[in-house]
Amino acid sequence: MTPETLLSILNATPGWAEQAAASDLDDTATLHVLSEAAKFARTQLEPLAARADVEGCRIEEGRVKTPAGYAETFRRMGEDGWIAPDLAPDLGGMGLPLALHVTASSQMEGAALPFMMALGSTRAAAHCLAATAPELATQWCPKLADGTWAATICISEPDAGSDVGRIRTRATADGDAYLISGTKCWISFGDHDMAERIGHLCLARTGTVEDGTRGLSLFLIEGGPQNGTHVERIEEKLGLHGSPTCVVRFDAAKGTLIGTEGRGLPALFNMIELMRLQVGTQGAGIAATTATLARSYAEDRKQGGHPAQPPVAIIDHPDVQRQLMMMDARAHILAALLVETAVTLQQAQAGDPQARTLAPFLLPMAKTFGGELGQANADAAIQVLGGAGYTREWPAERHFRDARIMTIYEGTTGMQAQDILFRRLLKSPDTMNAVVSRYGTSPLLDRIQTLIERLATAAHSQQALAADAMLRACWCATADLLSQRIADHSGAAQALTLWRALAPSDMAQAEATVDWALST
Amino acid sequence: MTPETLLSILNATPGWAEQAAASDLDDTATLHVLSEAAKFARTQLEPLAARADVEGCRIEEGRVKTPAGYAETFRRMGEDGWIAPDLAPDLGGMGLPLALHVTASSQMEGAALPFMMALGSTRAAAHCLAATAPELATQWCPKLADGTWAATICISEPDAGSDVGRIRTRATADGDAYLISGTKCWISFGDHDMAERIGHLCLARTGTVEDGTRGLSLFLIEGGPQNGTHVERIEEKLGLHGSPTCVVRFDAAKGTLIGTEGRGLPALFNMIELMRLQVGTQGAGIAATTATLARSYAEDRKQGGHPAQPPVAIIDHPDVQRQLMMMDARAHILAALLVETAVTLQQAQAGDPQARTLAPFLLPMAKTFGGELGQANADAAIQVLGGAGYTREWPAERHFRDARIMTIYEGTTGMQAQDILFRRLLKSPDTMNAVVSRYGTSPLLDRIQTLIERLATAAHSQQALAADAMLRACWCATADLLSQRIADHSGAAQALTLWRALAPSDMAQAEATVDWALST
Repeated sequence: MTPETLLSILNATPGWAEQAAASDLDDTATLHVLSEAAKFARTQLEPLAARADVEGCRIEEGRVKTPAGYAETFRRMGEDGWIAPDLAPDLGGMGLPLALHVTASSQMEGAALPFMMALGSTRAAAHCLAATAPELATQWCPKLADGTWAATICISEPDAGSDVGRIRTRATADGDAYLISGTKCWISFGDHDMAERIGHLCLARTGTVEDGTRGLSLFLIEGGPQNGTHVERIEEKLGLHGSPTCVVRFDAAKGTLIGTEGRGLPALFNMIELMRLQVGTQGAGIAATTATLARSYAEDRKQGGHPAQPPVAIIDHPDVQRQLMMMDARAHILAALLVETAVTLQQAQAGDPQARTLAPFLLPMAKTFGGELGQANADAAIQVLGGAGYTREWPAERHFRDARIMTIYEGTTGMQAQDILFRRLLKSPDTMNAVVSRYGTSPLLDRIQTLIERLATAAHSQQALAADAMLRACWCATADLLSQRIADHSGAAQALTLWRALAPSDMAQAEATVDWALST
Repeated sequence: MTPETLLSILNATPGWAEQAAASDLDDTATLHVLSEAAKFARTQLEPLAARADVEGCRIEEGRVKTPAGYAETFRRMGEDGWIAPDLAPDLGGMGLPLALHVTASSQMEGAALPFMMALGSTRAAAHCLAATAPELATQWCPKLADGTWAATICISEPDAGSDVGRIRTRATADGDAYLISGTKCWISFGDHDMAERIGHLCLARTGTVEDGTRGLSLFLIEGGPQNGTHVERIEEKLGLHGSPTCVVRFDAAKGTLIGTEGRGLPALFNMIELMRLQVGTQGAGIAATTATLARSYAEDRKQGGHPAQPPVAIIDHPDVQRQLMMMDARAHILAALLVETAVTLQQAQAGDPQARTLAPFLLPMAKTFGGELGQANADAAIQVLGGAGYTREWPAERHFRDARIMTIYEGTTGMQAQDILFRRLLKSPDTMNAVVSRYGTSPLLDRIQTLIERLATAAHSQQALAADAMLRACWCATADLLSQRIADHSGAAQALTLWRALAPSDMAQAEATVDWALST
């Protein structure tokens, strides 16, 4: 996907023009940002990621050693403003619109997803501090934004993954500060050698176990053994070899309370939101990168055709064209979804009530289908490349391994489906009202409305069986609306006709699953 | 999937009873074979595969060194009769029905797919020799069946993958024998240290380039440097680390002609057929193994539930149950497809005209959907296991990596789709007539008939765009018939209701794709 295409998708999205104008961006400036991101991704990040996948991360003398080039690249991206370009200028950012940040960074995610995770948590932490702890923000945000310091998010524990109410890491008041003890797992870049300081935004228990999530508070902990913070292990994984996934033990580590006691989860809310959006960004990036890879391979690779003639490029075979079209459709629709979600999140942040209702409808889709369609394109790229795609001589298999995490971390697909069904669709008519008033009515939206009505009176277990189908129904209708929006702008017109042709039967799949759930 | 379930699927399949009786097998004897295979898979092959994935294969002094335990296990399986149990007893086999071979070996494939590839090509070569070269068969087959010797299939070249007509490896007559020179790639177990001798069944050109496939002949070449056979490289791959994928160079290697000059492809026909069936066997195995893994993890792993109560096993969450049901449905339907295909292939071999028409309809589906559904279950197992599934502490990610090859090798999905559409469905009404006369009419089969009629008069490029959809339409209807057949026998009754609920909209997807192809 070219920067020009991304610009055209931005310009096709209602609300973007106002946000661009508010940041003093015209098309030339926007395209400049997108093009610079593309260039950096192609020339710096893609080779970095290829090397890092082979080298991996390791623990040396108790500290995580990242692959060659990581520290330099992180600092350089900080200096060039790529870590948190959407942060306010007085906190070290450039005040770029969120939609421009995600489109620019999706190109970088598509080149080096594992490396970019270090930027993602650092940026999200800066936003979290900016929203909840003004004094800490003044001290930390400029250092996070320029890559002098970095940050992580520490939620999961061995017995508390999706179920944060069971977190056992404990924080005890000790004068002005707190001492935090416990073990956190699945901490991406939980330690590294890329920054002078690592701040851990850590959820720990100040209340009793019986308090559940209401007994949790948020702390900022400066990492390192000097503050009782120890990396116990780096996970051996399918992919993401360029991202150290750490088990981190806090042993009476000193921490600063963020916000108030017992309000840890709400304080983390926008950090979690941004990290879910980042998954969508990753997915859009992988989808675009692998679509480009497959197309370019198909243009070069010669095979088949009339035996008496020289072999033809495989892109001349209709079935290969069909596969490439599906890949293009996924990449373009994901880009449109990402922009729509980012524009809406920024509108919500600014207080727009409709956007506040819509954002939690769009975000689970950006997270889930960014993950699924990014993975689907990595998978499809392997198929187009054939045997070559299965080897390490081509990056398709690396993207395929890296991409597989997206539907798991930052809340599994099951969690996203529960969220959209129980907290949105079934809770009040607000969500669907906002959807219709933003996008207009459509036959697919009517079909969702019917499903909601049928599920409203069903048993909870039937509703839960249907949650995944409802998430997919929402996506089917939303993707159809987005594909109409970009059809004239995206350079993937024929591909989008294929996508749209499948929408009614996609919806029928969701309906059949709901029927089945109601019959159990 | 238990041996008892596999027995019940065999017994639900028309034609099995006659084949079992002809081999003097009653239920007790059949179950004994299935249970022994399951035990060997669990106790020997699963640990072997886990170690081999880490150790991998390498070249030492010009020869391939396989992982520890491979040679011993290969010989032991030969001695125990597992390599070619369906070969005739006078050639070293046990004359077991093909359907029993595939159900028994699917359990082994599900444990150690990469290792089992050594057995697969060895067995297929034995059948090929038995069918085409009686004298060589007498010498080779007993040695292949007992694992003293092994065999490969050498077709692909760097510029001739799916397009075998462009093969350039050349064979020149030299007295009674031929000298073969050229480079073959993607040769699984193209060299190894597990047998005393490796026979390469190699397709080489005796005619001119202009002759295309009619200029190809089949040769048996004894491998090793003493006969000008050199391993140039082992591919670095996404998975299959336990299977050396070799580039093999023949340098005036002496070979024996199999059959007659110019009839190389027909001579390989049943070997290719058996290797495609093996992919279905692999897929059914991976699907069953990963379904069992996910269920057992979900029974053990505790997470969620009411905060005031201890956490519940995740299998208690409806959405996890739904995921496990889809996995069970895939595993059971694949087992039914595999048995149906094997029974039909054996009937065809015995001369049954209906079976001869049906076999080439079933085989592309067994190959393709074995691959896709096996992969889908490996993917789903990672999702059920969550973060744990993404790590190397659990075998889901290994199966996921290994399984990805199945829709590529032995003819990509695109090739299978072309085969079923152009050589079967569009060529004559025989195929659909045979399907209806074997399985009866059904609304889904009627819908396929309509699609065929609509495509019959379309342009070739439109037909080619619709080929994949037609393969899926055939599968949708066939899987529906199979799921009815086993619904009462399989222990996956509720799972199959979910599968069947989705069939009409699956067919609608295929129809929408055909509509789209016809509109281009």
